Amino acid sequence: MDYNKLSLEMHENNKGKVSVVSKINVKTRDDLSTAYTPGVAEPCRKIAQNRADVYKYTAKGNLVAVVSDGTAVLGLGDIGPEAAMPVMEGKAILFKEFANVDAFPICLDTKDVDEIVKTVKYLAPTFGGINLEDISAPRCFEIERRLKEELDIPVFHDDQHGTAIVVAAGILNSLRLINKKIEDVNIVINGAGSAGISICKLLLQFNVGNVVLVDRNGAVEKSQDWLNNAQRDMTNITNKYNEKGDLADIIKNKDVFIGVSGPNCVTKEMVASMNNDAIVFAMANPTPEIMPDEAKAGGARIVATGRSDFPNQINNVLVFPGIFRGALDVQAKDITEDMKIAAAKSIAGIINDEELNEDYIIPGAFDTRVADAVAKEVAEVAVRTGISKLSKELCMENR
Amino acid sequence: MDYNKLSLEMHENNKGKVSVVSKINVKTRDDLSTAYTPGVAEPCRKIAQNRADVYKYTAKGNLVAVVSDGTAVLGLGDIGPEAAMPVMEGKAILFKEFANVDAFPICLDTKDVDEIVKTVKYLAPTFGGINLEDISAPRCFEIERRLKEELDIPVFHDDQHGTAIVVAAGILNSLRLINKKIEDVNIVINGAGSAGISICKLLLQFNVGNVVLVDRNGAVEKSQDWLNNAQRDMTNITNKYNEKGDLADIIKNKDVFIGVSGPNCVTKEMVASMNNDAIVFAMANPTPEIMPDEAKAGGARIVATGRSDFPNQINNVLVFPGIFRGALDVQAKDITEDMKIAAAKSIAGIINDEELNEDYIIPGAFDTRVADAVAKEVAEVAVRTGISKLSKELCMENR
Repeated sequence: MDYNKLSLEMHENNKGKVSVVSKINVKTRDDLSTAYTPGVAEPCRKIAQNRADVYKYTAKGNLVAVVSDGTAVLGLGDIGPEAAMPVMEGKAILFKEFANVDAFPICLDTKDVDEIVKTVKYLAPTFGGINLEDISAPRCFEIERRLKEELDIPVFHDDQHGTAIVVAAGILNSLRLINKKIEDVNIVINGAGSAGISICKLLLQFNVGNVVLVDRNGAVEKSQDWLNNAQRDMTNITNKYNEKGDLADIIKNKDVFIGVSGPNCVTKEMVASMNNDAIVFAMANPTPEIMPDEAKAGGARIVATGRSDFPNQINNVLVFPGIFRGALDVQAKDITEDMKIAAAKSIAGIINDEELNEDYIIPGAFDTRVADAVAKEVAEVAVRTGISKLSKELCMENR
Repeated sequence: MDYNKLSLEMHENNKGKVSVVSKINVKTRDDLSTAYTPGVAEPCRKIAQNRADVYKYTAKGNLVAVVSDGTAVLGLGDIGPEAAMPVMEGKAILFKEFANVDAFPICLDTKDVDEIVKTVKYLAPTFGGINLEDISAPRCFEIERRLKEELDIPVFHDDQHGTAIVVAAGILNSLRLINKKIEDVNIVINGAGSAGISICKLLLQFNVGNVVLVDRNGAVEKSQDWLNNAQRDMTNITNKYNEKGDLADIIKNKDVFIGVSGPNCVTKEMVASMNNDAIVFAMANPTPEIMPDEAKAGGARIVATGRSDFPNQINNVLVFPGIFRGALDVQAKDITEDMKIAAAKSIAGIINDEELNEDYIIPGAFDTRVADAVAKEVAEVAVRTGISKLSKELCMENR
């Protein structure tokens, strides 16, 4: 199918994808007097008296802003806020379809980190959560960090954490299938930008044996002089044996290859140099680091990609709807590492031992069980770890 | 009916009033590949090449932000952005119900004029228009003025201009009924804040004979030392005969009283001191400047209020849905004085000579002809006066 052509037609015919509708009828004078003046003054008064009542009387508790500055849209780069709209609208409708979250696209006409942080803070009264999207590195790190510190609603940069969570779920199930312990596993991640670093950090939370990040300059290792700040920080928690060299050197004797880099940078021979039962996640889009048949020919036992036309698609849509659903359900103040771990485990847990096989280590994008399972686990962890603004009793009622 | 109680229940049961939905289905892999990756990259590319295509491929062209900082909400004052949410959501659903505009509430957590202006500018790529709401004077003047200068989408402060337009429509029809020429008419406006000044300015566009603004300190007149900047500016275009004194002095021998002030400040005797066929628009809410039966007893021929339980309700809902519908339909860059005049005339024109009477000088809030008529006139004026971003041919196609 020519998705480009189909997509243009669909976007033009519908004038975009999101619409704002009313949850109630306004057909009579009484409706008007209840939904608007004079009746509407009463919920306003209640919220003025107790700000927390904004969750009780308004849409805030189910509203998520999908915020971008258009600087790193898909693989298209810095195309500006207007051109980012189709992606942010797309994200918004996926939130709705998969988890009944009311998400709204916000494309910002500034690239200044301070201004973006301030703007999102000013917008916060309207929203129950903030999904950051397609903001270029390293700006995305600072924006997310500062907003997480300053806001009392969840802030989540999906490009980093959504990908990391679904990769972690896939790795958990891959290791379950081949019976390797995560503590013994050696991993190479090719691509040391925001996605690679985020995947690395989350895998370390699962006590992975060792991870080496590789960049186009070679392995991220503490004696290198080309490291950026984020990469230098990673040298303290990765590359236990101070491995140096390029990807061909580093991939040798690794159990897992994770690629968030570019097309065709891995050969059959490189896969053959990995340990037995090699796991290859080649997620460059649209052309993976190595095609699945080549990776298999090199000896890979499990191959995952970002594409829907091969088995084991690593797709963020398994994560963001459910994780926000869970966070919103309990008025979580944040999305924490514990909540991300819970999300990864619950995605992995969807597939039972009988179903698990080399071509089915991750649920399909349209598996409707996923968002529910993720939401439930994430909400429970939020409540248990004190991240919910609600009392435990109220949380149970809400669920 | 106890609208306060009904309103609280309705808001709690529905968790607010707005919802964000998808205009398309995402049920299959093909849907996902068309609405989202990889297909969505194509409309992004088109917009990156030609920014104007954002109107072709996204929801921008039908999206209006209902922006408030919560500083002047209804009669409740500065209750903050969270407590303003019920009103902004209410406005948003009225936009939808009356004119199929997708409007979204934006309640800002800052009262700083510069910050509000910057924030709305940053948000502009997402929206086809900006409706400012419940922002206190005199800040609202500067915010609107600067945004109108700096943005290429319509910016409209409804509390000022919506009220002014519907008042103008009511005055036009009142004068039609009693056969007075607007050029000969003497008007007193009680309340010299943002609404009063805005009504005054619009009426002057219709070549009203003379208008005197009155404040709690008395008539706005150039020798007074208590005038604020906005009031001082008005002395150049109002109060032709330098009338001084309080409302009881000024109302004498006037043809029209317009009140945007407070309850019970006008007596039967004061109405009796007006010219024959006196017109009284007593719009203080919920208690008017004078009750309709008292005004009639004083000799008023036509009385209008802000309330739905008396004849001739002056209600902004007659204006904002249609004026934005018209502006959006032709991608207007602005909402100009010409467009406001067109809106007022088209609202007045809904009532024909046979129907026109003392208790029916303004259409009812639910008269579905109004928004369509306003939209059509406003769009035509926008095209004719060069305010539309579209070619005339394209405009005709759109309508």
